[in-house]
Amino acid sequence: MASQQQKLNVGVLGATGTVGQRFILLLADHPQFNLHALGASSSSANKTYSEAVAGRWKQARPIPSNIQNLTVQECRPENFSDCEVVFSGLDSGPAGPVEEAFRRAELRVFSNAKNYRQDPLCPLVVPLVNTDHFDILDYQRSQLQPPTKKGFIVTNANCSTTGMVVPLAALEKKFGPLDKVIVQTMQAISGAGYPGVSSLDILDNIVPHISGEEEKIEWEAAKILGGLTEDKTAFDLHQNSPMKVSAHCNRVPVIDGHLETVSVSFKNRPAPTPEQVKEALREFEPEPLKLKCHSAPKIAITLHDEVDRPQPRLDREWQNGAGVNVGRIRECPVLDIKFVVLVNNVMLGAATSSVMNAEVALAKGFLS
Amino acid sequence: MASQQQKLNVGVLGATGTVGQRFILLLADHPQFNLHALGASSSSANKTYSEAVAGRWKQARPIPSNIQNLTVQECRPENFSDCEVVFSGLDSGPAGPVEEAFRRAELRVFSNAKNYRQDPLCPLVVPLVNTDHFDILDYQRSQLQPPTKKGFIVTNANCSTTGMVVPLAALEKKFGPLDKVIVQTMQAISGAGYPGVSSLDILDNIVPHISGEEEKIEWEAAKILGGLTEDKTAFDLHQNSPMKVSAHCNRVPVIDGHLETVSVSFKNRPAPTPEQVKEALREFEPEPLKLKCHSAPKIAITLHDEVDRPQPRLDREWQNGAGVNVGRIRECPVLDIKFVVLVNNVMLGAATSSVMNAEVALAKGFLS
Amino acid sequence: MASQQQKLNVGVLGATGTVGQRFILLLADHPQFNLHALGASSSSANKTYSEAVAGRWKQARPIPSNIQNLTVQECRPENFSDCEVVFSGLDSGPAGPVEEAFRRAELRVFSNAKNYRQDPLCPLVVPLVNTDHFDILDYQRSQLQPPTKKGFIVTNANCSTTGMVVPLAALEKKFGPLDKVIVQTMQAISGAGYPGVSSLDILDNIVPHISGEEEKIEWEAAKILGGLTEDKTAFDLHQNSPMKVSAHCNRVPVIDGHLETVSVSFKNRPAPTPEQVKEALREFEPEPLKLKCHSAPKIAITLHDEVDRPQPRLDREWQNGAGVNVGRIRECPVLDIKFVVLVNNVMLGAATSSVMNAEVALAKGFLS
Amino acid sequence: MASQQQKLNVGVLGATGTVGQRFILLLADHPQFNLHALGASSSSANKTYSEAVAGRWKQARPIPSNIQNLTVQECRPENFSDCEVVFSGLDSGPAGPVEEAFRRAELRVFSNAKNYRQDPLCPLVVPLVNTDHFDILDYQRSQLQPPTKKGFIVTNANCSTTGMVVPLAALEKKFGPLDKVIVQTMQAISGAGYPGVSSLDILDNIVPHISGEEEKIEWEAAKILGGLTEDKTAFDLHQNSPMKVSAHCNRVPVIDGHLETVSVSFKNRPAPTPEQVKEALREFEPEPLKLKCHSAPKIAITLHDEVDRPQPRLDREWQNGAGVNVGRIRECPVLDIKFVVLVNNVMLGAATSSVMNAEVALAKGFLS
Repeated sequence: MASQQQKLNVGVLGATGTVGQRFILLLADHPQFNLHALGASSSSANKTYSEAVAGRWKQARPIPSNIQNLTVQECRPENFSDCEVVFSGLDSGPAGPVEEAFRRAELRVFSNAKNYRQDPLCPLVVPLVNTDHFDILDYQRSQLQPPTKKGFIVTNANCSTTGMVVPLAALEKKFGPLDKVIVQTMQAISGAGYPGVSSLDILDNIVPHISGEEEKIEWEAAKILGGLTEDKTAFDLHQNSPMKVSAHCNRVPVIDGHLETVSVSFKNRPAPTPEQVKEALREFEPEPLKLKCHSAPKIAITLHDEVDRPQPRLDREWQNGAGVNVGRIRECPVLDIKFVVLVNNVMLGAATSSVMNAEVALAKGFLS
Repeated sequence: MASQQQKLNVGVLGATGTVGQRFILLLADHPQFNLHALGASSSSANKTYSEAVAGRWKQARPIPSNIQNLTVQECRPENFSDCEVVFSGLDSGPAGPVEEAFRRAELRVFSNAKNYRQDPLCPLVVPLVNTDHFDILDYQRSQLQPPTKKGFIVTNANCSTTGMVVPLAALEKKFGPLDKVIVQTMQAISGAGYPGVSSLDILDNIVPHISGEEEKIEWEAAKILGGLTEDKTAFDLHQNSPMKVSAHCNRVPVIDGHLETVSVSFKNRPAPTPEQVKEALREFEPEPLKLKCHSAPKIAITLHDEVDRPQPRLDREWQNGAGVNVGRIRECPVLDIKFVVLVNNVMLGAATSSVMNAEVALAKGFLS
Repeated sequence: MASQQQKLNVGVLGATGTVGQRFILLLADHPQFNLHALGASSSSANKTYSEAVAGRWKQARPIPSNIQNLTVQECRPENFSDCEVVFSGLDSGPAGPVEEAFRRAELRVFSNAKNYRQDPLCPLVVPLVNTDHFDILDYQRSQLQPPTKKGFIVTNANCSTTGMVVPLAALEKKFGPLDKVIVQTMQAISGAGYPGVSSLDILDNIVPHISGEEEKIEWEAAKILGGLTEDKTAFDLHQNSPMKVSAHCNRVPVIDGHLETVSVSFKNRPAPTPEQVKEALREFEPEPLKLKCHSAPKIAITLHDEVDRPQPRLDREWQNGAGVNVGRIRECPVLDIKFVVLVNNVMLGAATSSVMNAEVALAKGFLS
Repeated sequence: MASQQQKLNVGVLGATGTVGQRFILLLADHPQFNLHALGASSSSANKTYSEAVAGRWKQARPIPSNIQNLTVQECRPENFSDCEVVFSGLDSGPAGPVEEAFRRAELRVFSNAKNYRQDPLCPLVVPLVNTDHFDILDYQRSQLQPPTKKGFIVTNANCSTTGMVVPLAALEKKFGPLDKVIVQTMQAISGAGYPGVSSLDILDNIVPHISGEEEKIEWEAAKILGGLTEDKTAFDLHQNSPMKVSAHCNRVPVIDGHLETVSVSFKNRPAPTPEQVKEALREFEPEPLKLKCHSAPKIAITLHDEVDRPQPRLDREWQNGAGVNVGRIRECPVLDIKFVVLVNNVMLGAATSSVMNAEVALAKGFLS
């Protein structure tokens, strides 16, 4: 393991929030990154992390002992000057200008916020899918006014998009472009942050609407599953083979773990059989696994044979939530194939994606 | 209101079960039916209803006082000889032979069990959709060996099918045949009876599988939405315009109320707009409403304008659960239109359908 | 039933909140009160009630049709000049000065807020327990500066206190003063209002603390169960026979209905047997029942014989939540007797108490 | 770590049940015990463990890979002849004769079943409280007909008793005998096994009764907190200073973790202050900690300063559920002191207690 000196200093923005807490658990003992600086709103500034997060730490594990007494600072670049990388768990309100300021200050920003996902220069990267999109980063830096030397922004995807695109990527890799996708999500309450969903709204209930979520899924899928243009200056948005995506999003009384039912059809005929689909998902080995990244799962897509799996409560902790779980692969009477996918929304669906993205970026030399 | 003498004597089979309890609440004070006889397994026989159901009555309302002391009997026709009609809440195990014996004994059986739903002589009737299927009853009686004079079996549909086909029927009535339907269900635990779903399986969890449910939805929809042949001796099963239906079924931690997300496409082009769809649903007035049946809702399909409705806990009791609730009608990027539908699975999805079917049958002279 | 003209005009303050919504359901069709005016914060003023409460109406029944288009006004007495009585569902923040202003303006205020519960002139009345405390109202009016002619404030108790004191009152009536009471509450989320408890705090969880609740129970019990001094100018606070009360309060994932386990000991020896206790609870008939008040339950304390009742979900709607449910009466190895009590916190524990208090006040001439 | 040869071979009875699954997770990788044999009912016999438990494995972690292919056998001593110790997760039905047969066959039985808890020769041991009770084991063996050389039975306590007696033992150690204890439990559904509690009984609900539970708490506390007679042939059952215990038991919609509110009084006056109580709990260091047993927690009683802790969901996994959590220590207006305690019912409240008992027995030479 790297000694403390060899590790890369990193910071966390929005450190007291739900996503920020997950960043802290992932980074407190990371072999390559040294969690050096914590940023939050001005009301938390100059408190120890324990003080700042008092009453809001909602994790089953206690605050890591080496983090408890770190001083929280305002999210200004000068407070993070010793860092090479910052992970952003900021809300979308402050995320836009703050992340931009950090990029300007030559920090690499790996963001869980939605603000730059649709930016034509920022990669929207699900680490188990499209880490090749990092190749646009040189162009991103060159296009800023003035250009940066090191600073860039990489975003990860919406949690429910993330779960869906991993098996879709495996299918496209093996069978060529998808034509149509209908996805219905059953999303955990932790996806809404804290305090988030009122218990009166969700106990003994389902809410069949999550603001902006369906649009995100329908749009993000094309950016993630598409490639870069040949000159690596733009995203092709899957336009060579336009893909129709329709999402129905629901909030359910589950703590963690988004479950999604998916029907898909393929451009190429004949469509693969369920057995061929299983084989394709089983053999899918994306870049973080090949690179043996610290946060990468051993198995990208865990297939379940039992007829009633995956289930959020039983399967979300598998591989520390870093992979996805797929089950019930069968023919769809309307499209070609249907199945169920589970993603741990607070892990791969959020903080784990950012961290794994940074690990891949480090391994591939984008952080030098 | 009819005097006690003018009311039709009716019985309930499976009276101590979850569906049976709902029959009792619906029939204890019915203006046209007099609840006269209760049937259950031999272990309950010769007990008062209160004794027989002790520890298993799971309704928020107490046992109606006029039913508490009715003696429960075994489900044999001779114990129901004073009845004209029986409602069956039997499990599928005993339902087959018992319902057949009652039909033979010249009783009209309105059954919630699945056993005769696929029978080519038995109507599968969602009262807000296809009460015209009663027209096959003469033929059903004529084909029995020996033919019956009065006895017949009418079934109602699976609870999740019921919720879906009401808006689909309204759409087909207005816009012609549907082409494709993809439905995802989020089904309440009460649909599995008592004790049914273990709390360890469903608290903080979703189970993405309900045995046989997807097949029921995919098959039943065609029988219900199809018509009778011209000579009224068979069901056309929607074969003039085959319809593809694909279902994803899930069990969720909700007490009552199945929520379903639905995407549909139409045979006729251009497809209707969301506004036209709303209009069609709003004006849908099926036979029980025209006949002003006692158990019929005032509004067959209640449309919700709020972006996050219907919701099970807030909307399932509306109209005593006798209608369906629809919301979020919008264009589907893959098929034509998508929306959300809620059905109260223990009311319209079960006992209320049987009772409303009997009310329509009475009004149309099928019980004379 | 009284004609519209003969009904007393009443208003509701805090009409858009959780308690306010319950007031509206109770008053929309009341035989003696005509719901004439609605008050809320300035952001709701001049909207129709439907508009003002959009997205916040969380009741299983829709907004009563005769209330939907009532105009909401600011909570100023001049907007309620046609009313005789106002019911206050205000939060404790605004409740203090607003209720005082309404009293000054000669309105009778029946308040669910906590602000005046400890006031030495204001009765703290659980309608099934101590409506005799209304006798202090003349003195209350006389002591104001300047004295009012009609205006007064009556409060009702905290929801968990309310559930406990009803059986305790029945026991004291029959067996003399209590000595010690230990109560543990399991309180529903609706007690915290909306949005209230975050789902992340309560799903698959218990929170063993509710701010200020234990102190309220321990203090309010003495005021309610005590009497008035002989000259009817003060509350005796049970001081002739001081009673020790200890409360453990917990929030649980239940929508409505506070369940409480109670152990009590009596001053007089020998203590009553469980059978004598049952008899005392069964025969308890407080004033609202004798006066046949509209909102009064038929049975003040419903006794359950089943070993596992009462239960919130099964028993909270009994009698529209206007009485209490008691079960498991047995000897306590530490004190004398122990039992379980259920109170519907949003009905008798809140709005129903205020309305029933007003009904008793009307019947006894305090509103003339 | 001991080599495989040096480890003690152990077996698990009832290996497919809820408690058995926890034994397997605790023992699959134990430094001193080698999980060698699995016993279950005849329907599971001769299957691999994976086959036998298919559809019933309800743990968030998968079946340990070294256990998946172990062959399950019937619970007969000859199938466990290579074992020194067996852990019993049997239901109380089979547990009585089966455990007796294993003892006769010279196996040491550490049982989670209730059958021998009240046996005058069998220690009832909460490992954080009364491991000194092992001193009766010689006498137990001598009194059997015929006496055994090695075989004995040690039981652990009911899960809710276990949580309560740990802080009570710390208090008695410091402040002398307790006089009175009133405890209210809010018990997780996992305490009832699988399928256990029906979801229809517990969702949005509390059940204020658990069969036999209150009696167990009230009786077991005296055996555990009492000592042995001087000659180590009997349990004194706390009779030198009789202690009154009263329990109110409730089932709540929580997966794991029993929360209990406790009020206690002391024989000696003056009673300790809350600060003194905190100090006593903090310094409590029972034998498994001193012996540094593998399964022992670092801290026996974790004190929480936050006003709303411990909470089941947030604190049950702390120290892998091997200790207890206590909070809200304050004066009780009726008895002396009151507080809240959380025990992980499936860990310290069940399998962890058996395993820790065996570890202590091993360390103290009782397994030679």
